[in-house]
Amino acid sequence: MEILGGPLFGVAGAGESHGPAYTTIVFGCPPGLYLERAQIQRYLDRRRPGGASLGTSRREKDQVILTAGLYQENHERLTAGPSLSVDTDGAEGSIPTYEAGYTTGEPIAALVLSGGAHTGDYSQFMGPRGDVRPGHADLVKYYQSRGFADPRGGGRSSYRATISDVIGGAVARIFLNTTFQTVFLSNVIQVGTLKARKTLASVAEAVVNERTQRRPLPGSVIATWQRTLETMPFPTLDAVFAAEAAQLIERMREEGESVGAVVEVVGVNVPPLVGSPLYQSLKLRLMGALGGLNAAQSCEIGSGLEAVERTGSEHNDPIRSNGFGANHHGGVLGGISTGMPLVCRVGFKPTASIRKLQLSVRKDLTEVAFRLQKGRHDSCVGIRAGITLESRMAIEVMNAVLMHQAQHVGQEPFVLFNRSG
Amino acid sequence: MEILGGPLFGVAGAGESHGPAYTTIVFGCPPGLYLERAQIQRYLDRRRPGGASLGTSRREKDQVILTAGLYQENHERLTAGPSLSVDTDGAEGSIPTYEAGYTTGEPIAALVLSGGAHTGDYSQFMGPRGDVRPGHADLVKYYQSRGFADPRGGGRSSYRATISDVIGGAVARIFLNTTFQTVFLSNVIQVGTLKARKTLASVAEAVVNERTQRRPLPGSVIATWQRTLETMPFPTLDAVFAAEAAQLIERMREEGESVGAVVEVVGVNVPPLVGSPLYQSLKLRLMGALGGLNAAQSCEIGSGLEAVERTGSEHNDPIRSNGFGANHHGGVLGGISTGMPLVCRVGFKPTASIRKLQLSVRKDLTEVAFRLQKGRHDSCVGIRAGITLESRMAIEVMNAVLMHQAQHVGQEPFVLFNRSG
Amino acid sequence: MEILGGPLFGVAGAGESHGPAYTTIVFGCPPGLYLERAQIQRYLDRRRPGGASLGTSRREKDQVILTAGLYQENHERLTAGPSLSVDTDGAEGSIPTYEAGYTTGEPIAALVLSGGAHTGDYSQFMGPRGDVRPGHADLVKYYQSRGFADPRGGGRSSYRATISDVIGGAVARIFLNTTFQTVFLSNVIQVGTLKARKTLASVAEAVVNERTQRRPLPGSVIATWQRTLETMPFPTLDAVFAAEAAQLIERMREEGESVGAVVEVVGVNVPPLVGSPLYQSLKLRLMGALGGLNAAQSCEIGSGLEAVERTGSEHNDPIRSNGFGANHHGGVLGGISTGMPLVCRVGFKPTASIRKLQLSVRKDLTEVAFRLQKGRHDSCVGIRAGITLESRMAIEVMNAVLMHQAQHVGQEPFVLFNRSG
Amino acid sequence: MEILGGPLFGVAGAGESHGPAYTTIVFGCPPGLYLERAQIQRYLDRRRPGGASLGTSRREKDQVILTAGLYQENHERLTAGPSLSVDTDGAEGSIPTYEAGYTTGEPIAALVLSGGAHTGDYSQFMGPRGDVRPGHADLVKYYQSRGFADPRGGGRSSYRATISDVIGGAVARIFLNTTFQTVFLSNVIQVGTLKARKTLASVAEAVVNERTQRRPLPGSVIATWQRTLETMPFPTLDAVFAAEAAQLIERMREEGESVGAVVEVVGVNVPPLVGSPLYQSLKLRLMGALGGLNAAQSCEIGSGLEAVERTGSEHNDPIRSNGFGANHHGGVLGGISTGMPLVCRVGFKPTASIRKLQLSVRKDLTEVAFRLQKGRHDSCVGIRAGITLESRMAIEVMNAVLMHQAQHVGQEPFVLFNRSG
Repeated sequence: MEILGGPLFGVAGAGESHGPAYTTIVFGCPPGLYLERAQIQRYLDRRRPGGASLGTSRREKDQVILTAGLYQENHERLTAGPSLSVDTDGAEGSIPTYEAGYTTGEPIAALVLSGGAHTGDYSQFMGPRGDVRPGHADLVKYYQSRGFADPRGGGRSSYRATISDVIGGAVARIFLNTTFQTVFLSNVIQVGTLKARKTLASVAEAVVNERTQRRPLPGSVIATWQRTLETMPFPTLDAVFAAEAAQLIERMREEGESVGAVVEVVGVNVPPLVGSPLYQSLKLRLMGALGGLNAAQSCEIGSGLEAVERTGSEHNDPIRSNGFGANHHGGVLGGISTGMPLVCRVGFKPTASIRKLQLSVRKDLTEVAFRLQKGRHDSCVGIRAGITLESRMAIEVMNAVLMHQAQHVGQEPFVLFNRSG
Repeated sequence: MEILGGPLFGVAGAGESHGPAYTTIVFGCPPGLYLERAQIQRYLDRRRPGGASLGTSRREKDQVILTAGLYQENHERLTAGPSLSVDTDGAEGSIPTYEAGYTTGEPIAALVLSGGAHTGDYSQFMGPRGDVRPGHADLVKYYQSRGFADPRGGGRSSYRATISDVIGGAVARIFLNTTFQTVFLSNVIQVGTLKARKTLASVAEAVVNERTQRRPLPGSVIATWQRTLETMPFPTLDAVFAAEAAQLIERMREEGESVGAVVEVVGVNVPPLVGSPLYQSLKLRLMGALGGLNAAQSCEIGSGLEAVERTGSEHNDPIRSNGFGANHHGGVLGGISTGMPLVCRVGFKPTASIRKLQLSVRKDLTEVAFRLQKGRHDSCVGIRAGITLESRMAIEVMNAVLMHQAQHVGQEPFVLFNRSG
Repeated sequence: MEILGGPLFGVAGAGESHGPAYTTIVFGCPPGLYLERAQIQRYLDRRRPGGASLGTSRREKDQVILTAGLYQENHERLTAGPSLSVDTDGAEGSIPTYEAGYTTGEPIAALVLSGGAHTGDYSQFMGPRGDVRPGHADLVKYYQSRGFADPRGGGRSSYRATISDVIGGAVARIFLNTTFQTVFLSNVIQVGTLKARKTLASVAEAVVNERTQRRPLPGSVIATWQRTLETMPFPTLDAVFAAEAAQLIERMREEGESVGAVVEVVGVNVPPLVGSPLYQSLKLRLMGALGGLNAAQSCEIGSGLEAVERTGSEHNDPIRSNGFGANHHGGVLGGISTGMPLVCRVGFKPTASIRKLQLSVRKDLTEVAFRLQKGRHDSCVGIRAGITLESRMAIEVMNAVLMHQAQHVGQEPFVLFNRSG
Repeated sequence: MEILGGPLFGVAGAGESHGPAYTTIVFGCPPGLYLERAQIQRYLDRRRPGGASLGTSRREKDQVILTAGLYQENHERLTAGPSLSVDTDGAEGSIPTYEAGYTTGEPIAALVLSGGAHTGDYSQFMGPRGDVRPGHADLVKYYQSRGFADPRGGGRSSYRATISDVIGGAVARIFLNTTFQTVFLSNVIQVGTLKARKTLASVAEAVVNERTQRRPLPGSVIATWQRTLETMPFPTLDAVFAAEAAQLIERMREEGESVGAVVEVVGVNVPPLVGSPLYQSLKLRLMGALGGLNAAQSCEIGSGLEAVERTGSEHNDPIRSNGFGANHHGGVLGGISTGMPLVCRVGFKPTASIRKLQLSVRKDLTEVAFRLQKGRHDSCVGIRAGITLESRMAIEVMNAVLMHQAQHVGQEPFVLFNRSG
């Protein structure tokens, strides 16, 4: 089933690129977490294409609406969210939605309505004579569904489906931040052949090394990183690299081309001891959730591919009484979190949608010289992926936290009537 | 996770009694099934309380809106559903929703907005001084959630949550009917001590016996039953019983009391050979899904409790070359469907919400003489349960069908490019 | 997948009636529980047919061998279990298995070798000309598996498969007893038309009523019940009923017939607040796990079918500051445990294997007058089912306990290096 | 739960490095597949350390014993496997196990007894004063399990646990080979900084390009590769590289050091159209299953990290009427298989167990200069990983195949009695 994470904390999504709405259900958030719609909206806003030059020029305004799973006794504040209404035969009054409240332990539902009027000219892609876009799922989806796939904007396979990831991730990260001060950050470190000189992993490790006595990482340090990452034209700590990369992306766009990218995603103050050793290890889950994202072609953890060229004594991280002396392991050993920053890197292929002429087929397999007729596309899809990667990492950590807690059965949660007396 | 059915066909729901909306995601319907909103709506309409005398006097008008998972090339027809709109800062144009289309194999999402203006006086139940309703989940939900449960109308535990069951069930039964002519019916057979003299099981068995050569059951016979069940004041084949039961329920209502009921649910033309022998047997799944419904206290399959008093030679159904000679087994043997009508009976306790004075506590466990201050309630919740039982049976059969199909791997579904040549 | 319980605590089984061995893997037991092979063996011993007169005359000696999931530093004691050896080409020394140790949090594996030399004359059932036993899964299994089902003794569908249930249940009940003093008991209350006058539910309720101040139930009271249930010729609290029922069963056996039974299964000192309201409610899970057992045709919870005939004021259990005033609800309200005794009743059909002549078919559907050629069979399979019902109840409660604990995230389980300093 | 793959085809394992046995249950193999113990054994033999120079010098002889899930009417052949016996109080006759038979659709169980007499000196690692091995899960396992982890040879976290992966993989690959001629191969392509000049991906692509008309790949071509990979001292197509790498590994071993490796794993004749677009995409599942293996630090699919440096027009694979013109996508587009060879690469860190002195702690966090006292270890764990990677890829493909088949519901599998007449 279409569930991200789980079995304890998980996210279900539904919706297709040009359909009416994306629907998200978030399962398993413990009761008592205060959630505001605006918090989730802020994460969703980071998902949207930035500006005309770097991202897609499509204007998406994805407003989240919360329809289930919150409560507070101040009903006015609870239901101060946007009103939702349906026009049917009879005039049904509009319904206020949730603005803020405490989680109840029940599923949280969110809705993001389709942003704008789609012109609806999909004739290039419709039916058995419709074109197949190279590098996309068009052909396999068509045959897999026996011709019933939605061809509009990639249907369910569109990157827009990550709206659900981000909403679920928002709940997870608010819970984890409240409980453990956990923060998830991402940082573009490569675009085409251009590489950043500054990585979050190195910065995080430096800070940890400096003051191993003082875990978790102080919020002030993290806040600085966050600010930097948010004020940059695109999210990277390295300003020089950012400028060069922006130029490269712009050039690609002009040429009707695209380029790949590598994004680093880091969790700091991740609680140690979560995950399990083998088939459901935190490493397995992260490699899948991150490396399985649309357009991803590689996923590394800790020192990743570089580890291959190291010797054991170089790679093994020393352990001292107050913590690990290094983080080549990337925050996970034997599938279990160590409390060191969780460090992954995901490589993205160049955006598949390009303006250049390509060899392709129609869905009936007759050959065509394919040219994309319309559509506005990112030239470097990877640089938008950070928020989704953070979200997926948060979801997996959240699930692992609950799984670990389940193994520590105490008396306190199981009291109804007072037993003494 | 809050999933009904699964792992292949399943339904996720979110929403609470007085929240903004119920959200439903239906997973795993194969591509290519034509679905119309009106079909699903018809099942939902059966869920609503019938009339003032028998059911609750609350006016629920649960209109289903489809927001994901359908497609057809006729976009106008596809998006001819009710328009959905949100009032926010900016005027966002309203979005048309789906009216009819083919399933794509992707999750189907549905939304049912909250029906009416809730007066919002829940003060009797709010906070640690709020009253606990006997026979409800109020107290355990309050302590389980550490005080964060939504007390409005039972929150998530309300019977309204079965909206998701019915939507998911609608998809399952349309698929099964299209593919196997399967039909699910229900029939109230007991109210308090009053018992119906006519059961679907016996009728179905008679028909099957008469013409064992002609399976599946002819649609005309089933259509007659359906018509009868739908035109009666409440759904039972036995008109005399119906009249007496209606009187009893009315009397209970006047007395501020309530009464229990037994509902028979039957699947005809259920494909044989689905289910597995042990831990995921169709029997286990049905007993759970049906017997686990709110207010249910018992579940029987086939001859049920009566089987205890029979001998083996009386109970074992003869097997002939053209089918089973009887259906004491209720359509499942060893956890696997036999093709005979699937027959279950579910016993419901009297509605917990009554007007009579009762002994109870506040949530802080101080004792009170409890009297329900307001609210309109069914006096016999069981008589409304048929549609939900049918839905749950359909969901489990649907999942079992897909599970069985998965074990029959052929070549045909795995062809992309033509291999010959 | 063939998992009982789950997703946190679950049991996987493999093995068929006349195969080499039953294999069981128990997932999700928290680390630190001390387990002895002899404890598990005691539960398995209760699974075996009692004596020649009441149960099957087959001599099963199911010895459990533990091969994974335990540890203690006293390696000698750890590995003091029976030695296991394989004869192959080379003489491989025999391997000692586990006798006792602490759970590590990793899967626990158990093996029960096939008890005796099966003569191996299954010719009555083999191949497309093999006979189909009425009341069994033979026919549907044959067609479901396209002829590849194991026909020996019912194959995987044999009641012997409940060995895995009992092993998994043993781990669950030892954990629950250690943590919450939980005890699971069962009691035969009906055989054919004969009914016991004494039920565990009534006894338990009486005790609870008497001293509502003193929950949980004192171990001494429970111990008395247990002793009674274990010293009776078959497990029931009512000696007069037991004698009559034994006579009836014996008479059935002589006549080549069989008879049904009802078994009550009760959990005392079940922790309150476990379970969830809807699709994974404790009620749903219990109804499925218990009512889904081989030969079961009905499952009731609390007052069960009787509830139908009661009014709301009779059925709703009063709530006082120190607990519930009655237990018509059977320990579960709204899908969540209340701390009152968990009470279920399961009705079993008469044993399907009888000596009388019956109408049946060969697997190729040609008709035969069927007579069972050999085999030793219980005349009343229900009276052996208690231990399995207890086991399944324990497994579901255990899973629900872990699920609930997962929602109570504290700081303590997430500390590795000391954070202060 | 400890399940690899699933929900349809999955593998459960139990067992720890120095425990009595590894237990494996394989779920979901369709009925009718002929399996021989010797076939599974051949795969297991490939798992064992090769020879003294390259792998560990430990002599493991992992003999598989099949105890459930097979059947054939020739009982003698069915039960011609090794006899299993237990020495207990009474002399229980030994039980023959399965040698060969058809799958029945029921779970298949396998047992691998512990190979040899372990001397049992684990004092270096036992208790709170036991040493923690850098680069291993020792410390986190100890605290996660509150001190109850099995410290002998890494306990459950040992690489020996992949026995279950290989057994489950064997079933999957025999099924896939029988049905689709699918073959899984692996090839070491990097050791330390040494890189092979010949990859399976390039070879496979060349062959496919040459004769796009003739898919699937002819068995003769694949057989040649397999032979090469099996006759080399370690599994690589590049003999020069192999010689250099062997030298490097030997040097590392002499220095008490270790080194990393990259292994390529390729599936040929993988059926197209399996997998789903998003949260359960084949890409996500492969990245998790492969990249999540012990010691893996990176996972790539198709052109992997290199894709980042390409432009869209370079990376998008042309599509022609008879297939894809290239395989930068690695056999998966949009999470769905394309029928092109499935190509993944996994990077492994240097073996964590080295003889050199390292900084570490005791389990009570007091600091120590750590030196491994005994044990025989691979200097390059990656070169043994191929068989496990192939197995995991096979398991995920198998599950995806069943998932896809489930969406193609036909009439044929649902016939019991003949409907015509």
